[in-house]
Amino acid sequence: MHQQIPHSMFDQPYTIHTSLLFNSRTLKFDKDQSIRVNPKTGRIISVTSATPNLGTVSHPDLDLRGYTVLPGFVDSHAHVFVHPYSETPSLHQERDESLTERILRAGNNAKAGLKAGFTTYRDLGTEGAFNADIGVRDAINREIIPGPRLFVATEALASSGGYEIRQENKIGGTTVPRLSDVCDGVDSVKAGVRRRLGAGADVIKFYAEYRRRTLRFPQPTWPGSKAIKYPPYTTGEEGNPILTPMNPPSTLFDQEEMNAIVREAKRAKCPVASHASSPEAVIMASNAGVTTIEHGSVPSEESLKTMKKNNTIYVPTLCVADVELDDKEYRKAVLAHAKKANEMGIRLATGGDTGVPAHGDNVRELELFLEAGISLEDTIRAATLGGWEACGGDWCGYRFGWVGEGWQADLVVLEGDLRKDTGALRRVEIVIKDGNVVVDGGIIVE
Amino acid sequence: MHQQIPHSMFDQPYTIHTSLLFNSRTLKFDKDQSIRVNPKTGRIISVTSATPNLGTVSHPDLDLRGYTVLPGFVDSHAHVFVHPYSETPSLHQERDESLTERILRAGNNAKAGLKAGFTTYRDLGTEGAFNADIGVRDAINREIIPGPRLFVATEALASSGGYEIRQENKIGGTTVPRLSDVCDGVDSVKAGVRRRLGAGADVIKFYAEYRRRTLRFPQPTWPGSKAIKYPPYTTGEEGNPILTPMNPPSTLFDQEEMNAIVREAKRAKCPVASHASSPEAVIMASNAGVTTIEHGSVPSEESLKTMKKNNTIYVPTLCVADVELDDKEYRKAVLAHAKKANEMGIRLATGGDTGVPAHGDNVRELELFLEAGISLEDTIRAATLGGWEACGGDWCGYRFGWVGEGWQADLVVLEGDLRKDTGALRRVEIVIKDGNVVVDGGIIVE
Amino acid sequence: MHQQIPHSMFDQPYTIHTSLLFNSRTLKFDKDQSIRVNPKTGRIISVTSATPNLGTVSHPDLDLRGYTVLPGFVDSHAHVFVHPYSETPSLHQERDESLTERILRAGNNAKAGLKAGFTTYRDLGTEGAFNADIGVRDAINREIIPGPRLFVATEALASSGGYEIRQENKIGGTTVPRLSDVCDGVDSVKAGVRRRLGAGADVIKFYAEYRRRTLRFPQPTWPGSKAIKYPPYTTGEEGNPILTPMNPPSTLFDQEEMNAIVREAKRAKCPVASHASSPEAVIMASNAGVTTIEHGSVPSEESLKTMKKNNTIYVPTLCVADVELDDKEYRKAVLAHAKKANEMGIRLATGGDTGVPAHGDNVRELELFLEAGISLEDTIRAATLGGWEACGGDWCGYRFGWVGEGWQADLVVLEGDLRKDTGALRRVEIVIKDGNVVVDGGIIVE
Amino acid sequence: MHQQIPHSMFDQPYTIHTSLLFNSRTLKFDKDQSIRVNPKTGRIISVTSATPNLGTVSHPDLDLRGYTVLPGFVDSHAHVFVHPYSETPSLHQERDESLTERILRAGNNAKAGLKAGFTTYRDLGTEGAFNADIGVRDAINREIIPGPRLFVATEALASSGGYEIRQENKIGGTTVPRLSDVCDGVDSVKAGVRRRLGAGADVIKFYAEYRRRTLRFPQPTWPGSKAIKYPPYTTGEEGNPILTPMNPPSTLFDQEEMNAIVREAKRAKCPVASHASSPEAVIMASNAGVTTIEHGSVPSEESLKTMKKNNTIYVPTLCVADVELDDKEYRKAVLAHAKKANEMGIRLATGGDTGVPAHGDNVRELELFLEAGISLEDTIRAATLGGWEACGGDWCGYRFGWVGEGWQADLVVLEGDLRKDTGALRRVEIVIKDGNVVVDGGIIVE
Repeated sequence: MHQQIPHSMFDQPYTIHTSLLFNSRTLKFDKDQSIRVNPKTGRIISVTSATPNLGTVSHPDLDLRGYTVLPGFVDSHAHVFVHPYSETPSLHQERDESLTERILRAGNNAKAGLKAGFTTYRDLGTEGAFNADIGVRDAINREIIPGPRLFVATEALASSGGYEIRQENKIGGTTVPRLSDVCDGVDSVKAGVRRRLGAGADVIKFYAEYRRRTLRFPQPTWPGSKAIKYPPYTTGEEGNPILTPMNPPSTLFDQEEMNAIVREAKRAKCPVASHASSPEAVIMASNAGVTTIEHGSVPSEESLKTMKKNNTIYVPTLCVADVELDDKEYRKAVLAHAKKANEMGIRLATGGDTGVPAHGDNVRELELFLEAGISLEDTIRAATLGGWEACGGDWCGYRFGWVGEGWQADLVVLEGDLRKDTGALRRVEIVIKDGNVVVDGGIIVE
Repeated sequence: MHQQIPHSMFDQPYTIHTSLLFNSRTLKFDKDQSIRVNPKTGRIISVTSATPNLGTVSHPDLDLRGYTVLPGFVDSHAHVFVHPYSETPSLHQERDESLTERILRAGNNAKAGLKAGFTTYRDLGTEGAFNADIGVRDAINREIIPGPRLFVATEALASSGGYEIRQENKIGGTTVPRLSDVCDGVDSVKAGVRRRLGAGADVIKFYAEYRRRTLRFPQPTWPGSKAIKYPPYTTGEEGNPILTPMNPPSTLFDQEEMNAIVREAKRAKCPVASHASSPEAVIMASNAGVTTIEHGSVPSEESLKTMKKNNTIYVPTLCVADVELDDKEYRKAVLAHAKKANEMGIRLATGGDTGVPAHGDNVRELELFLEAGISLEDTIRAATLGGWEACGGDWCGYRFGWVGEGWQADLVVLEGDLRKDTGALRRVEIVIKDGNVVVDGGIIVE
Repeated sequence: MHQQIPHSMFDQPYTIHTSLLFNSRTLKFDKDQSIRVNPKTGRIISVTSATPNLGTVSHPDLDLRGYTVLPGFVDSHAHVFVHPYSETPSLHQERDESLTERILRAGNNAKAGLKAGFTTYRDLGTEGAFNADIGVRDAINREIIPGPRLFVATEALASSGGYEIRQENKIGGTTVPRLSDVCDGVDSVKAGVRRRLGAGADVIKFYAEYRRRTLRFPQPTWPGSKAIKYPPYTTGEEGNPILTPMNPPSTLFDQEEMNAIVREAKRAKCPVASHASSPEAVIMASNAGVTTIEHGSVPSEESLKTMKKNNTIYVPTLCVADVELDDKEYRKAVLAHAKKANEMGIRLATGGDTGVPAHGDNVRELELFLEAGISLEDTIRAATLGGWEACGGDWCGYRFGWVGEGWQADLVVLEGDLRKDTGALRRVEIVIKDGNVVVDGGIIVE
Repeated sequence: MHQQIPHSMFDQPYTIHTSLLFNSRTLKFDKDQSIRVNPKTGRIISVTSATPNLGTVSHPDLDLRGYTVLPGFVDSHAHVFVHPYSETPSLHQERDESLTERILRAGNNAKAGLKAGFTTYRDLGTEGAFNADIGVRDAINREIIPGPRLFVATEALASSGGYEIRQENKIGGTTVPRLSDVCDGVDSVKAGVRRRLGAGADVIKFYAEYRRRTLRFPQPTWPGSKAIKYPPYTTGEEGNPILTPMNPPSTLFDQEEMNAIVREAKRAKCPVASHASSPEAVIMASNAGVTTIEHGSVPSEESLKTMKKNNTIYVPTLCVADVELDDKEYRKAVLAHAKKANEMGIRLATGGDTGVPAHGDNVRELELFLEAGISLEDTIRAATLGGWEACGGDWCGYRFGWVGEGWQADLVVLEGDLRKDTGALRRVEIVIKDGNVVVDGGIIVE
């Protein structure tokens, strides 16, 4: 539809004319706004009401009238090294795929995310690829490959035996890459945070909790491996499919350790993301002062109250429930839990645990927010400004997720009127990142 | 006596008819009960009064009238990798036997325990075989080899220099397998517990105490090695053969460390077993909140009071006193101490430190309970329901040790009337585990 | 059928009366022979014609009249650590199964082989379990577990990159157990042989050849791993399914290295087995003077002539062709090749590469010999005396595979007359090893 | 110009109609040929004269009349991990760029090469990226990323100290990735070849020679590092700019070692490429029997005669001379040397040492062949069929570089008549690889 606009042309400021622009602060769709951007700084110079009766727009200005224009999307929980576990279970991605393949796939994934309108990724752990997310982030920032602006966690912190590739043949001499930077005790977790900061992490991720006792009842993970003949009860408390005796999550750190992680990170102005599902873990992590709770998938009034009290951002990753939960009733409860959080005024951010749903399908999380009954405006806020907050807000070094003066010129342009048809979320026509057209006609501009 | 009943036949629920069935809760021998079991789930469907005038029982139902039927026995303190030290001292089992031989012997031992009516083992440490108990447990659970349901500790926790194979030629370059996962300090013991949990341990074992200064007066352990010519006094306080100046036990951890071990394990819903003999160690460990005290072999009123106060389970391992103590008076005192514990209402569990007495001879611990003057009913309770409690009760993921709806269908069938002849404990005719006949006519069904 | 005969009873010599006994030297079935054996030495005292009109035989003598009695079978190519790859591909047995599980399975496998009438195994490599075959062999020899008399290779010799578990994520940090003791060059292969001798090997195994370039076109070995889209031609020279461009076998050692391996082993009176399929490899290995060629699966006149010239024993492992070759014509050609070898007077030995066919199914190799058109007598010779020769004959320290004075008292007793019904090979009633009844009524005597 | 042709459409054979097709065997441009291809096998079904008066060609057939159609180009000396040293000197690519960045750049490079019409790369060493070329090759073969068909060398073989990243602070603890798999001596080079084969190499590369004494007169390589004040003469024998006293190349292996490398590789049917510049090295390597000589940049009659005698393929990598030689006269001499080789009937292959010239600029080597005075037809042969020969011919598992029945359907389609305007080499309109359109309108089809 559009003519190909050379990426390199924009040395000079230019103007983008819109007829329908979402304001992620007022939560309103503004009419007829003109955005002046500077592709050299990557920032917005001004946002003003368009000239009345604006005629033909000529090059290099852009005429986006007739489209819905939003701040570029932020995926607040992504894994650029992961592709769907339904294709390849995590064990095999982490242990068997070559690091080379994983890095090349990460390049593909970054491109797919960008095409879907996601100009920023908060990437929460490489899942066995050491600190390679650093290299992917920098290759994007250096324009070696196209992709979203990455904020990365490098390796997540976990305690001993907490978050590992599970394999049985240790005595027999098989070793596998580590999945986490292991630390135990207050001094050790402080050191862990410091290692991450020094490695170049943009965000500290820690596992407040995990199903760490999985080797008690090992799953058959290779052809011919035998299942445990008489497993324990697999339905948990009150039918909960997560809190089961088979392998319940349990907290990996005590309160003092969690406090120390957050204290140490915040002293360096670094946001903290905590993996937590059960109320116990959510409450501990929230009380420790984390920036965000990831998943929080066991519905709990007390969890929500605690997050509200502590002003914790909640990243419910509904895609995981959508993909992993067979129990349809429970899936509904998880969605209702997210809606409740929104009603209570808890700040939300959208993140699909992307990779679990494929990169390129990132918008699925927004669709699940909508399915949960969260309003379109609140959903878009969670996918833009909420994402920026999850990245640490001003601590992250950039401003994005809102279209305003001095903010990064990130825009996603959807075909049609999103207010009338949320299907437009999947009709990405143009993506502008840092003031440059990076996707045009749905195709990466290279 | 019975015809061979193919293991694989039981796809469907069937009924076991008994005339004398022990109830480990009421401590009564119930008459004429019928137990309906589901060999697919491994659990009991119902326990009901038998039909009056029940006639011939036909296949696949089982007619166990005329036998004494008990819940399957639990050995609460076993070492599947150990055979009697009277055959081969621990030094040589740990240092000299090949790991391959030890694993093959473990297979034999598991079979022997099962034949003796023990459907569950709480296996408290591999004694130098790393985490190989995990592999044995899983091979049984996967039906690769027959054996009791194992709950394993993997490697026990001890502090530096606390629990080791003692050998003198360290500088000279001899190395030996480690006997414990070493940790010192609160943070370090937390890490130790976490390593065990991550490795797949079902129970945490720690040495509250050990005779750790044995290298002060090393024993001659090889042909031609010389004894210390002038050893210190070898008779201890008030003639106590354990608390001797030669090499008295001393506590390996301080109170804070023990507290941290227990706190950490319980956060993951994992029971804790503590090796402790002297009153000092027993009291510290009990106050730390351990699930069980192992041995506790120095008679002490205060020890018992502390265990009572803390609701600690006591596993007196009388077999060790029986085998190791030359001092007949002291042996009596140890038995009396166990009886006293029972009278005070302390919960007991039977565990022979099996391996020290041979596997297959596990029932010896029950005989010593009886010899100590503990009633048959209390003894059987300690050998069944008491064992389940020692395994952590519901935390372990299963219910066993009582014959009731929803509990694991584990039964041991003794020839004769146990009430009249405790020798029946050694006349195991049939063993049923998870609803399957695994021993028939005293022979493993393969 | 038989009454249970306690294993421990035979302190004294006793006599076994037969009516049909195979003589593996004369290749005749002898009538009415009485074998006097000494269970203390394990050897045969004498073989004599039975007393005419022998009446009832009384304990402890054995009456085997009416059965076919053969020397105990020798499986000349077994892997006690392997179970069928159709159950679990080799990659997963080697990398994923715990060493503990593998050792326990080896215990099961040994028992299964014994029940099938195989009193000796020539076990050619642990396939990733280091030297653990040593421990299994010794546990059997020490009567810790039942099983065939093992002659083991420990780890096979191969050159760099020659025989390995293939995995792609090396840079990413995954490591796997080694499959071979690697050596390159004359000095290095000498050292390799010496390491094996020192480790306790009974036979040296080396890979003259292997499909070592498999990583050029890696197979998809995990869920979601992708196949090479455009593989090279997969049908090889003249339609040969082994010599394909996709991943043809190539020789791992040059002639000098092979010569050095054999020379070094023979100096220590140790037999040498060589894996070789293509004529090139078979000829090189045979010319080097190996004791046996394993597989040799590419039919070749020149291969056979070379083996004949060098008096090399041929172990064609027809079971592998039977299991692995989809090409029915080629399967026939492999069988015809073995028959040709027999006709040319090449000494044969039966070995199923057992483990690939399940342990317990060892006799399958004999059935394939028969299917190939080799006579029953020649087949039994290959499965008895031929096996002894493959083990190095007198170099192995024992004599077995023939029923004669001073030879090991190993017998397999089949129901019926084998000459009339070769199905009797699978009707093993009694197995006697070293003069002890180890299988009775088809059941292991424990 | 062309409509986008979906990659996935071609499930069925289709026909490509040409008016001008180069035959790399007859060295003629054939008129009006129709090529029937099977995109499932990737191979050509038939090449026939087109139907006279062929009308409109309809989908899915392709009408390439009016274009020049050639077999897909082969770059016989590429480094997919390298970008121009003029951008980033080799030291910094090898030591300073993250492996992640290098792998992502390799993805870009592969794409660039494909767009330039190169359907095959003979990739001769990762230059410090270990075996990561394996992963890139496989990702392409598995269709994870687009790119040429790679035949890779993994790590080159060199002797101790022969081919390394030169850095001065070894004692001080700086370590750098290795540039070569180091081996010394006949046994050791055999091991080296075997390691490469086992790792999955398609071709063995070794350094017959290198400027290995560079640390005698180290170059200033960092800001502030000082130059040697009084360097030795920098002009070499007879003004030769390569054979200088400053740091002349010298041979890394003796004749026996080179012989052993080649013998070992050929036993596994693997081609061998040798880096060699001076006559001494070229002659030794050629006499050893290598498949190809790389560079050979010191003009020498004797070198050429030796290559001719041994039927060695010569890959002159003129791009290196073009980029690196300041001496214009010497540059001419190097080009004249290549022309001489061609006139003597030495087989040539084009390879730019690509990476040194940028990927995408691969055709530069062909332009230099033309500049040297080699005919268009001989140049195209060197860039197609000559490349296949350099890859080992049938040993590589594929046939490509000629348009004929059973050969891989690789085509490059140039705008215009190449015979009249060699500028057409840079006007790549369509690229077909394995029968699939992978570049259309100069853009990668994804």
